Amino acid sequence: MFDNMIASLREKSPLIHCITNYVTVSDVANMLLACGASPIMADDAAEVQEISGIASGLCLNLGTLHRSTVDSMLLAGRTAAERGIPIVLDPVGVGAAAQRAMAAQALLRELPIAVLRGNVSEVKAIAGVASSTRGVDACSADLVTPETLPELAAFVTRLALALHCTVAMSGAIDVISDGRATYAVFNGHPMMPRITGSGCMLTGVVTAFAAANPGSAVQASTAAYAAMGLCGEIAHAALRPGQGTGAFRSNLIDAMSLLDDDALRQGMKVCIF
Amino acid sequence: MFDNMIASLREKSPLIHCITNYVTVSDVANMLLACGASPIMADDAAEVQEISGIASGLCLNLGTLHRSTVDSMLLAGRTAAERGIPIVLDPVGVGAAAQRAMAAQALLRELPIAVLRGNVSEVKAIAGVASSTRGVDACSADLVTPETLPELAAFVTRLALALHCTVAMSGAIDVISDGRATYAVFNGHPMMPRITGSGCMLTGVVTAFAAANPGSAVQASTAAYAAMGLCGEIAHAALRPGQGTGAFRSNLIDAMSLLDDDALRQGMKVCIF
Amino acid sequence: MFDNMIASLREKSPLIHCITNYVTVSDVANMLLACGASPIMADDAAEVQEISGIASGLCLNLGTLHRSTVDSMLLAGRTAAERGIPIVLDPVGVGAAAQRAMAAQALLRELPIAVLRGNVSEVKAIAGVASSTRGVDACSADLVTPETLPELAAFVTRLALALHCTVAMSGAIDVISDGRATYAVFNGHPMMPRITGSGCMLTGVVTAFAAANPGSAVQASTAAYAAMGLCGEIAHAALRPGQGTGAFRSNLIDAMSLLDDDALRQGMKVCIF
Repeated sequence: MFDNMIASLREKSPLIHCITNYVTVSDVANMLLACGASPIMADDAAEVQEISGIASGLCLNLGTLHRSTVDSMLLAGRTAAERGIPIVLDPVGVGAAAQRAMAAQALLRELPIAVLRGNVSEVKAIAGVASSTRGVDACSADLVTPETLPELAAFVTRLALALHCTVAMSGAIDVISDGRATYAVFNGHPMMPRITGSGCMLTGVVTAFAAANPGSAVQASTAAYAAMGLCGEIAHAALRPGQGTGAFRSNLIDAMSLLDDDALRQGMKVCIF
Repeated sequence: MFDNMIASLREKSPLIHCITNYVTVSDVANMLLACGASPIMADDAAEVQEISGIASGLCLNLGTLHRSTVDSMLLAGRTAAERGIPIVLDPVGVGAAAQRAMAAQALLRELPIAVLRGNVSEVKAIAGVASSTRGVDACSADLVTPETLPELAAFVTRLALALHCTVAMSGAIDVISDGRATYAVFNGHPMMPRITGSGCMLTGVVTAFAAANPGSAVQASTAAYAAMGLCGEIAHAALRPGQGTGAFRSNLIDAMSLLDDDALRQGMKVCIF
Repeated sequence: MFDNMIASLREKSPLIHCITNYVTVSDVANMLLACGASPIMADDAAEVQEISGIASGLCLNLGTLHRSTVDSMLLAGRTAAERGIPIVLDPVGVGAAAQRAMAAQALLRELPIAVLRGNVSEVKAIAGVASSTRGVDACSADLVTPETLPELAAFVTRLALALHCTVAMSGAIDVISDGRATYAVFNGHPMMPRITGSGCMLTGVVTAFAAANPGSAVQASTAAYAAMGLCGEIAHAALRPGQGTGAFRSNLIDAMSLLDDDALRQGMKVCIF
């Protein structure tokens, strides 16, 4: 089911239009290149329609949101919708600022979002469920553990049905559902949230996988999560004594740039509910 | 006096709201994560009050300044002031552009800045002292040497008294004073100014130390300087043959992500005047 | 002819004013520092004239272009022109968005551009030659091979004469011409376009070489290309098993930070037509 997704991505090298924050934009571009996609960043209202008009996927990220950028996201999103390319939304810090919450609601209402991807605190904020969101990092009260997994899987499944899209929720265990199929991904490493952009990079990779593997956004998203998590494991294993999060960040890009479908199939830890 | 500051930081993981330039923002975020803090970047006037309203520290940086950003800094700063969280100001390139000088003056006048942190050229420009500032790097005429140290320490002490805040001035030897206590930090490595963002990262770390260790901004700043300088020494010692500033930058984050209070206590080279 | 260019750059440490995109800006700053220059980024209309007024070179990059930034580029450019410092233009993604094409035409018309630097797709778009530009990466139909080299060299030479500037076109083989002298640079490695910013970094390095070595922009540009390509070769050779594009990016900065004129002279693969 997940066979050949990376080969397909590297062969097609889909152009991914990103309207994203200026904190992690370089990491997103490098991770997209590492997985085989071709990134293009553009957020000015005067050009986003043209760029989405030649892209194969659109990645919308609410980090460091500016008011004017929401208009650009809607313009790009309508072009993407007309052309039938996948739109992926990352509601960074949505629980921390009303402007981001309103933007997320507008984008979900106006555009056929293919995948909503965030951490537990962000996804709960989107669902209007009480959460203790604090900034852009998931709150420690929002941990996904084997004990809380069934409940969270049911929550993600219901939200996917309500929003008519794939919902991908990152945590120690990731849960991805389109309302019909629901997956849990056990790949990953605790060091990943200790570098900035691990979530943003994953959103880019999800967009790339979905763009290159049309048909099932939930499966493409699950494969992207497993790939990114596996790269986190490889990146940690490659650390030498005295190395920390700086080397980990570089190793993560290294691992993705070398990953192939065989390694993904052997390393992926995914279960279906 | 400096005991336990890193443990406190890692335990509290303070949320640090950064309104900062787009050149080094990723490095600042990664360095804040490495030292144990949780960064959030937001500069749009519509959301900065909310973000500073949940943060434990506010980091203002004048690099790549836009006119509208000064309003955001004032809005965030007033919220920070009401809540009593530390505000740290980095007047990047303040001697090179009138807009930055006016912004620095407005922020110092309107907000209870806890720490003003810059290189010698920038701090001199703030003080209105003749300097040969050139761009964002300290001018070579502004070197801090054992010979010029007493004079510069007196200068920083007077400026701290005049501005009613801690003044932290970076150089080959760093000088930090709140007007009462004045410290010199001898940690660091000449390679640090050869990567972009070493100053901006330090400003973030100073904010994090001050947020997690309230009570004495001058002591928290001094510890942050010693920690960052020590990481520079460790990062240089870890270079292998053929490695240069690229590896140094990654090593610097590595070192901070692994630093603890014992290593800081053993490695810090600080004297008090 | 190319002797001593790096020594001259490191000795003068020219201040390079960059108005550039937010994706690769950190890489550009680090690469400028690595080659010996001092970067300053500023794009607000209120301060660009002051910054270009103290700079030794101006680097204009159309990536993530905003409408208001074109005005800043013109303001900075006119100051640069009055002062006689070199202006280098990188028309990132010019074939993908009308706004970028109009900006490039305006800048080429209004300012005495010293060097136009882009990939084959971008340079063809500037020339109005049919190309299959796609996003910000060169199209595979636009490969520079030994077979197509003579034709492309003639094309670049004609364009340089028409635009009255040096045109530097990146590809597997780079072609640089001012209409009189035309060079081909064979240095480089296929991994370079697999990281974001390799083109933007090169544009910065070209500006630095031209600023420190006035007199012949075409020779300074050729030396910058050879230096950057050689660093790509060194960066690839330094990769260990399991390392990919993450380490390559860091190695590239390492190599530039250690490069000297002897290594450049021995490693450069340049021919003149």
